[in-house]
Amino acid sequence: MLTASYLGNNEIAIRTAEPQPPEPGQVQVEVAYAGICGTDLHVLQGEMDARVTPPAILGHEMSGVVAALGEGVTGWGVGDHVTVVPLTWDGACPACRAGHEHVCHHLRVSGVDSPGALQRLWNVRADQLVALPPDLRLDHGALVEPTAVAVHDVRRAELAAGDRAVVLGGGPIGVLIAAVVQHDGADVVIVEIDPQRRAYVEAMGFAVLDPTVVDLPSWVADWTGGAGADVVFEVSGAAAAVLAATDLVKVRGTVVVVAIHAEPRPVDLHRVFLRELRMVGARVYTRSDFERAVELLTAGVVPADGLITHIAPLTATSEAFGALQSGQQMKVLIDLAQD
Amino acid sequence: MLTASYLGNNEIAIRTAEPQPPEPGQVQVEVAYAGICGTDLHVLQGEMDARVTPPAILGHEMSGVVAALGEGVTGWGVGDHVTVVPLTWDGACPACRAGHEHVCHHLRVSGVDSPGALQRLWNVRADQLVALPPDLRLDHGALVEPTAVAVHDVRRAELAAGDRAVVLGGGPIGVLIAAVVQHDGADVVIVEIDPQRRAYVEAMGFAVLDPTVVDLPSWVADWTGGAGADVVFEVSGAAAAVLAATDLVKVRGTVVVVAIHAEPRPVDLHRVFLRELRMVGARVYTRSDFERAVELLTAGVVPADGLITHIAPLTATSEAFGALQSGQQMKVLIDLAQD
Repeated sequence: MLTASYLGNNEIAIRTAEPQPPEPGQVQVEVAYAGICGTDLHVLQGEMDARVTPPAILGHEMSGVVAALGEGVTGWGVGDHVTVVPLTWDGACPACRAGHEHVCHHLRVSGVDSPGALQRLWNVRADQLVALPPDLRLDHGALVEPTAVAVHDVRRAELAAGDRAVVLGGGPIGVLIAAVVQHDGADVVIVEIDPQRRAYVEAMGFAVLDPTVVDLPSWVADWTGGAGADVVFEVSGAAAAVLAATDLVKVRGTVVVVAIHAEPRPVDLHRVFLRELRMVGARVYTRSDFERAVELLTAGVVPADGLITHIAPLTATSEAFGALQSGQQMKVLIDLAQD
Repeated sequence: MLTASYLGNNEIAIRTAEPQPPEPGQVQVEVAYAGICGTDLHVLQGEMDARVTPPAILGHEMSGVVAALGEGVTGWGVGDHVTVVPLTWDGACPACRAGHEHVCHHLRVSGVDSPGALQRLWNVRADQLVALPPDLRLDHGALVEPTAVAVHDVRRAELAAGDRAVVLGGGPIGVLIAAVVQHDGADVVIVEIDPQRRAYVEAMGFAVLDPTVVDLPSWVADWTGGAGADVVFEVSGAAAAVLAATDLVKVRGTVVVVAIHAEPRPVDLHRVFLRELRMVGARVYTRSDFERAVELLTAGVVPADGLITHIAPLTATSEAFGALQSGQQMKVLIDLAQD
């Protein structure tokens, strides 16, 4: 079978490998689609070389079909449609013992810390599987993982119906957060600086603002009767957005830190104090976030077709990374069934 | 009577004024003691000239005795011991309408935005009064306001018994927070860079660390079995403490922003994300925080005698500000009964 591996130095190689049978407790999944995302780009650019040892098979967003069961596995059958929660934890650290396994001190992510989904036959632990309904298209099923991120982000926000939320950053995660927020009965606006992304976001039916044209604080003040937004999601990773976030949020409102900020960012702590703001970090997801993501995708709440702007065969993985890196695509999928 | 007023240009003047009878709905309080604090220093240094119009009678921490009742005031009697919640709000802004009057968009602080307690006979609205028990010493009663700040800070932390908390900054507010935390059944350590303040803190029986000598992350890791602190209170206002705060706190732990940071501070948002931290601002107090502060002072929970390191007559207010500014005092009180 073919695999796509990170070789270091910004290089992806397509290589052949002999499929291995699943070990006891494992399931072999025939991968249908795998998504690539910002984390994969960070790996490719060498920023995660401390964690990722080349050659490393990437891919932690996927959908597939059960192909074989390892010894002792029950509850699954060949042909079941599935996705994979790509996390493993040690179960022993203080975070795990407090019930927060998804932020384990030694969290391992499949496709980052261990081989991922960019291979046709992938062996994973049976307890990492989440069932997909047979009527959910498998390309849409590859969006479960990023949708689970959005579900988790919105849970961390403690949003209520009727709230007004601002999403800073209109990439796939920003759009997925907006979709979940709307489904939860709140109003949402997305702020995105890139015109191509704004066009995608608008085409999916979301309100979107260009921060180079709109004065955000007065727009939000008008929108909220002078109160400020109930929640601001910082999804852009930009320093300016961090300062904007505290400016836009109401007294006792919430800023959710979704993006990865590689260096400390100036934060207006005086505003945090004056308005008694709450800033919360939101990282990955729990199994229940995954299960809700499956429900939302199956119910058609997520604009999956609008989000998937590029599908490439595994042999074109390198070009697919280039397309993602251009910033002109939303979700990029690899179709493992195509050669 | 004598008053102490801010004249601008770092100047305090002692002036005479004719006492005014209380207006309808007001109570005239004979001020016993007034505390001065960091906010008063900011006023004196001209940093709040946008809000404070000289000549301005300062003082928002105090204790006193009811001297006269204005028309229509019921429920109070001459001779009652009282303190004053020095806040007024508009009742109409979005924060007030949401029930957060203490962080009103147009909050006014007595002694900052209107005349304060550094006058022997002070007229205040009857609904600003909080009763002090007759057996609470009036010098201790002047600590109700800063104790209410600490009560509010600890409420915002959502601390639980058995938690471990770090207080960054060992001034009066830091010590008061530590006292409330301990009373709530949690363990606490104070971090303070100044040796004189460390000596005061130690004499009051609190554990205190010198951050120039102790490696805080490993100290806290040892203390908490590798987990990190449940709560870190940032009371110092120092940029380095903001970065330390996110380093010291456990997965899903809380950083309470108590200090005033005049400019945006670098915050390790990657750590906020990775550990799903919560940063909350805590500003002033509610009436119920005041009432709990009275209870804690009356019960002897607060080390009032250890905190009050300097008492001066009103005529020496300027020197008292100098003593506070030196950083070598903890709580400085003005005794209004002395001439």
